[in-house]
Amino acid sequence: MRLSDLPTPCLVLDRAVLNRNLARMAKAVSGKGVALRPHMKTAKSMDVFKLAVAAGVDAPPRGITVSTIAEAEYFSGHGVMDMIYAVGITPQKLDQVAKLNAAGADVKVITDDLAMAARIAEHTNPPRTLIEVDCGEHRGGLAPNDMKLLELAAVLRNNLVGVLTHAGHSYASRSAESLADVAEAERVGAIFAAERLRASGHDIQIVSIGSSPTALASGQLEGVTEIRAGVYMFGDLFQAEIGTHGHDDIAVSVLSSVIGHRQAERRVLVDAGSIALSKDRSTADTSHDCGYGLAMDLLGLPTLGHSIVQRAYQEHGVIALDDNVSDPAMPIGTKLRILPNHTCLTAAAHDRYFVVDGASEEIVAIWPRVCGW
Amino acid sequence: MRLSDLPTPCLVLDRAVLNRNLARMAKAVSGKGVALRPHMKTAKSMDVFKLAVAAGVDAPPRGITVSTIAEAEYFSGHGVMDMIYAVGITPQKLDQVAKLNAAGADVKVITDDLAMAARIAEHTNPPRTLIEVDCGEHRGGLAPNDMKLLELAAVLRNNLVGVLTHAGHSYASRSAESLADVAEAERVGAIFAAERLRASGHDIQIVSIGSSPTALASGQLEGVTEIRAGVYMFGDLFQAEIGTHGHDDIAVSVLSSVIGHRQAERRVLVDAGSIALSKDRSTADTSHDCGYGLAMDLLGLPTLGHSIVQRAYQEHGVIALDDNVSDPAMPIGTKLRILPNHTCLTAAAHDRYFVVDGASEEIVAIWPRVCGW
Repeated sequence: MRLSDLPTPCLVLDRAVLNRNLARMAKAVSGKGVALRPHMKTAKSMDVFKLAVAAGVDAPPRGITVSTIAEAEYFSGHGVMDMIYAVGITPQKLDQVAKLNAAGADVKVITDDLAMAARIAEHTNPPRTLIEVDCGEHRGGLAPNDMKLLELAAVLRNNLVGVLTHAGHSYASRSAESLADVAEAERVGAIFAAERLRASGHDIQIVSIGSSPTALASGQLEGVTEIRAGVYMFGDLFQAEIGTHGHDDIAVSVLSSVIGHRQAERRVLVDAGSIALSKDRSTADTSHDCGYGLAMDLLGLPTLGHSIVQRAYQEHGVIALDDNVSDPAMPIGTKLRILPNHTCLTAAAHDRYFVVDGASEEIVAIWPRVCGW
Repeated sequence: MRLSDLPTPCLVLDRAVLNRNLARMAKAVSGKGVALRPHMKTAKSMDVFKLAVAAGVDAPPRGITVSTIAEAEYFSGHGVMDMIYAVGITPQKLDQVAKLNAAGADVKVITDDLAMAARIAEHTNPPRTLIEVDCGEHRGGLAPNDMKLLELAAVLRNNLVGVLTHAGHSYASRSAESLADVAEAERVGAIFAAERLRASGHDIQIVSIGSSPTALASGQLEGVTEIRAGVYMFGDLFQAEIGTHGHDDIAVSVLSSVIGHRQAERRVLVDAGSIALSKDRSTADTSHDCGYGLAMDLLGLPTLGHSIVQRAYQEHGVIALDDNVSDPAMPIGTKLRILPNHTCLTAAAHDRYFVVDGASEEIVAIWPRVCGW
């Protein structure tokens, strides 16, 4: 099977780029005494995780991070038992996790809530639990110096095994310096919380930090036991804008077909719209607005300059062609690949990857993704 | 099964509201001598189509409109044969449609391209074809007075059966008057194109127009044979803002669970994020910005005022509570229903509906949706 045979829209994964990204992260964390616990919310694929393990330098990842119970079920079904479900646990999901754990999984959960901690402690099969710490993102978690931290730990008792924080606000950084600052604040916040808990007699084995930007920007990681990152595997236009990688490090794209032209306006209509691409507009706030995605040719090469998906309807995308594209006449059916603004959201609409190896037409594999909840 | 038993996030459909919306549209087109050809891109469900048929007044819908080949396969597999695939056809999809038609379906296609028209005419099993006409949206289609219209018709020969236009720019309207103007321009544009083709000897049986706003706003429909509309079945916050219906006419919502609090900031964290809700921000341009969705209580009642999803991460939504919500302390696990900005995109992330009947906890049915392509 070749790229030109594929039904459109569909998701293409370049394994060569993926392997390069995996090797880069493995090198970035190598020698720092921490485990990489990749966040599988982006890739949602066992095949991708296997490559992440193969790419490991001194300590290949053993455990993973998941964002849905569906991911936890899927990965434990494939033998990956060591997981953190990194979204605040609820009573209902606690039962789902306990069931997976009774069947052999080791899904750890997070909380920052006293009543929920009590539910965990009272459960017949309580999962190992991490306290969520807020290192500045202000989404979830307790501040490292919050008085409730020790209260929560007391309720969790020996179910407490660690602290977890996520510097999601690293995505607002636009320079290596500010990124390094966020990364260091993330590390210090997590360690401070862990030390407070240890001083109260709790056995804190896991100090878990990480986002893709801070994982790559991190300097020394003393006191941290593991680092979570996910989007680094695939990259996207937004990550490229914040300097995490280059455009040619983006491993996924949406294959689309030209379905119409407006030559006078130098526009091309494609069959990848807001479902296939997502409505994410994260590059709008950067210095290179890519609309709903940046168009490449069939082989994923940047021969179309800054041709972007300017408008997105449900199943239609309008590409505004770069002024330097010499011939805007692409016959109906011409296939283009569109790089995503935010790879996690774009990939979420697709149930499989069509895998290529570098700038080649050949489909070398089809890998399923675990969608939904 | 009850709402409180459902895993979150998931998609809830209120059948009572759906039936009301279906009846309203059936009444709006009744007596105007046109067929309703509902666009199933929003509902993607045979169960919903059956209710649309049951709601028909003088002429229940027989045919449908689809936006993907997956929908065409699904609906023809359920015995709905009369379809228009309303996205510009490509050579590859022409083969897919021809295969469905050889198996008994009657999928009609649209084009505005000369080379594509030649491919259709040369095909061994050409589908019946409509010329796409641009009535002002400027997405796809030929202008009604374009010289190429007759050229295209000559190439299509007896495969040509109609013209199709879509007043998608009706969504930019903010008053009944401007909506009526767009609706009339849509009708006149389609008829003008049809009359030009007829004057050249072509047998134009189908004059297809419609978007949900123009379908509801349309006055007389002389010369039109059918009207396509889809989002009217479910409604959404954006449609409510442009005056197509009220908030209590929105039939779908995303059931979510509270997973965290920031009481000092009067914020609640839920497990419905940008995948479950979509990143659509269409209400941003209206007078009531609803962020990524408007929160209701478990029964779908507006007891939370203007509490909106202010920020959306992949699996986290941050709800900013209305000042008038008296008690922001919702225990972890509390279930809320979130009305979508754009129902087509929100529903696209979900593979089934959990159906309720009005403000009741009881799940009366589970209906599958046909996702993907």
